[in-house]
Amino acid sequence: MKNDLLLEKSIRNIHGFPKPGIIFRDVTTLAQNSVAFRRSVNLLAKKYQGRKIDKVVGAEARGFIFASALAHKIGAGFIPVRKEGKLPHKTISTSYELEYGKDTLEIHKDAIAAGERILIIDDLLATGGTIEAVIRLIKKLQGKIIGIGFIIELVDLKGRDKLKGYPVFSLLKFHER
Amino acid sequence: MKNDLLLEKSIRNIHGFPKPGIIFRDVTTLAQNSVAFRRSVNLLAKKYQGRKIDKVVGAEARGFIFASALAHKIGAGFIPVRKEGKLPHKTISTSYELEYGKDTLEIHKDAIAAGERILIIDDLLATGGTIEAVIRLIKKLQGKIIGIGFIIELVDLKGRDKLKGYPVFSLLKFHER
Repeated sequence: MKNDLLLEKSIRNIHGFPKPGIIFRDVTTLAQNSVAFRRSVNLLAKKYQGRKIDKVVGAEARGFIFASALAHKIGAGFIPVRKEGKLPHKTISTSYELEYGKDTLEIHKDAIAAGERILIIDDLLATGGTIEAVIRLIKKLQGKIIGIGFIIELVDLKGRDKLKGYPVFSLLKFHER
Repeated sequence: MKNDLLLEKSIRNIHGFPKPGIIFRDVTTLAQNSVAFRRSVNLLAKKYQGRKIDKVVGAEARGFIFASALAHKIGAGFIPVRKEGKLPHKTISTSYELEYGKDTLEIHKDAIAAGERILIIDDLLATGGTIEAVIRLIKKLQGKIIGIGFIIELVDLKGRDKLKGYPVFSLLKFHER
């Protein structure tokens, strides 16, 4: 499937960020464009129509933008997954590898009841490490993952391979890094 | 005006967090409750109906949750204000005092065109320091601030006094710290 041109054009390409050879796909220019922002969330809503989503999970911080707008649009709750120490109540946590070192993500222990139908939404699928961690958190709480949706997928980084067994959807696919 | 009971009950009160004597008002329990989340965003949308908002600005990270859902609901763009070094393109920045030390917030330089009608949305009005900083950023870009809306206002901390000259609205008012 070809990229939606309006959405694709609303992404800012920053060459050489964060390091030489990389094209950074900046989703903030999509979000600040009212037409593109509306369309992106509405297309996600259409994709998951009729799937009876109880809650949409978003990861700190850019993930919040699309996950919460979609949650509101489809009448679901919104759950934040945050960096260590940011959530005020009892949490469970998991760590994942970064290029250098590791990072820890947390979710409130009572954010999901066993069997609830969960949709994960994030802005970007790159190597998939963050979302793997989010999946672990949801599974510990016995949530049922209905789907995983992204605004942008960097296809060459093969993040999809890490998410096997889950239905993955992305609005925009980019092939160069 | 009395607090909406459904919304008020959806807030989790955490006694003694982050330190003894403080009651922390946890808005994540409101967001994860689909009925309360929907109602909170719809009440904000109703409040700003007909005000021709171009863009809604939210501050990292909890502010994103409500600002982006509202932006989508009213057909506006969403603009993130972030901590130093998080935005990938050219930014302007401003610093503000914390209880200990200071913090810096940034906005993309081209996020707002001169004269655009801007709504600021955040989860919590406490002392108002963060929002003062957000106002400075928007004014530097010559945005026109139409209103400032919060889910929760901690009335006794008098954040409203710092925001004089701007129409401030909050869905829930709490009187004890």
